[in-house]
This record gives sequence, C-alpha cells and structure tokens, in this order.
Amino acid sequence: MKTRIFVTLKNGVLDPQGKAIHHAIEGLGFSGVHDVRAGRLIEIEHEPGLSKADLESMCTKLLANMVIENFEIEQA
Amino acid sequence: MKTRIFVTLKNGVLDPQGKAIHHAIEGLGFSGVHDVRAGRLIEIEHEPGLSKADLESMCTKLLANMVIENFEIEQA
Repeated sequence: MKTRIFVTLKNGVLDPQGKAIHHAIEGLGFSGVHDVRAGRLIEIEHEPGLSKADLESMCTKLLANMVIENFEIEQA
Repeated sequence: MKTRIFVTLKNGVLDPQGKAIHHAIEGLGFSGVHDVRAGRLIEIEHEPGLSKADLESMCTKLLANMVIENFEIEQA
C-alpha cells in the first residue's frame, strides 16, 4: 500500500526556495504565474495494517516541523 | 488557479534521503514500512490561461531533472 505525504510551509512563512523558482520561471519567459511555494513529497510504501494515526504521528514527530509546516496525508 | 507539481526520482535511482527517513521511522518504533521515497512538491498559483503545455515545459526545463526524475502535474 502506498501513501503520499505532502509537507508545505504554513501561510505567512517566508519561502525563499519558492521565490527563487518563481523568479526562474519568469526568467524563462513564462507569464501569468502569481506565486510559487516549494514543499516536500514523501512516498511511503507500507503494509495495509499501518493506521492513519501512525502516519500522522510520523508526520508530527519526524516529517514535518509543525511550527512552520503543515502536512497532508493522501492514501492511494 | 492552483496547480501542484510532484517531482519524484525515477525507479532504480538511489534515494539516500528516502533511506534516511525510512531508517528514522524505524528508529521511532513504527513497523510495517517497506520503502520510503523522497520527492519535491511545487505549488504554482497562476492565471487560468496558463496552459498544461506551458506547465510541462516549466517542468522539463526547470523543475525536474529528466535524467533521474519524473514529474506529475495535478490541476486543482
């Protein structure tokens, strides 16, 4: 079983990586982009028995910094 | 309009970051995890007029290294 975890910066937290990507996109000549935010994607291949509570616990303890980041769990 | 781009390593490409996360998850006492792969998530806020072809072009030119990475575009 495969689960995807998305870790994104909270609103209001500065994102220099996203800013750099935005700048580079404009440098390539694309217009119409208002904002870019960079985050992390973690794909976990696990046994079906692993509970959502366990996955949430992994996120809060290890995968996301809850002070500045949010996470989202998407089970396939 | 918001589009999410997922950049993941191709199958067979070594992923030391994923391996380190996997190791740390086991160190926390969670069992049942077979594999972890780390990737990037890029959220783009743009005008509705920006085409899928433009987004693909951004990915191949800038956001993903096509030699070792795949990308996926998810339009909300």
